[in-house]
Amino acid sequence: MNLLHPDRDQIRIENVLLALGNPLRLSVVQVLDAGGEHNCGSVLSMLGVTSKSTMTHHWRVLRESGVIWQQPSGRENLVSLRRLDLDKRYPGLLDSILAGACTDVAAQPVGRRR
Amino acid sequence: MNLLHPDRDQIRIENVLLALGNPLRLSVVQVLDAGGEHNCGSVLSMLGVTSKSTMTHHWRVLRESGVIWQQPSGRENLVSLRRLDLDKRYPGLLDSILAGACTDVAAQPVGRRR
Repeated sequence: MNLLHPDRDQIRIENVLLALGNPLRLSVVQVLDAGGEHNCGSVLSMLGVTSKSTMTHHWRVLRESGVIWQQPSGRENLVSLRRLDLDKRYPGLLDSILAGACTDVAAQPVGRRR
Repeated sequence: MNLLHPDRDQIRIENVLLALGNPLRLSVVQVLDAGGEHNCGSVLSMLGVTSKSTMTHHWRVLRESGVIWQQPSGRENLVSLRRLDLDKRYPGLLDSILAGACTDVAAQPVGRRR
């Protein structure tokens, strides 16, 4: 299975923003920001997501926008954040987005934090 | 007519990213970044957009995400970028996005630049 990944210079900012403009996909990126390759299933477990079919769409959006690498590994897929590519192409963008996600959590009433 | 605008602390990063994750809306923000209030119609003229009904949707997405102020003025609407609110809430975010949009244009073959 060949999965489509844009080269670094094919990445477009509107696709990256659209990919991250979704709470679940943004949470995935927060998890992947720890670094390294992660098993798709383990990421979903960490986020409490049980619908694998829903996630197939989200993984594709993240991959085709250039936000993640996704590679088959046996019967699973391994995913990792394209930190280097994103930082090279859009300096400061990912850091400001991840910081912003933390700002939002801090601004929410305690009972409504996800 | 009362137009819904979120307070600064009600702005959510995923809504801002979703609003800017669209080429036309991103172009609008690039125009508004010059500062000041702009007549909706004049912004559309600058961008070569002729469909007012399509833009009604885009103005709403930008407004309800907290990216722009939109105020009625006579038979028209005036719009402006919520630069101060966005910079206070998400330092560096808007600058990195606008810089990223310029990076993309520079990376495109000349004939395909918008």
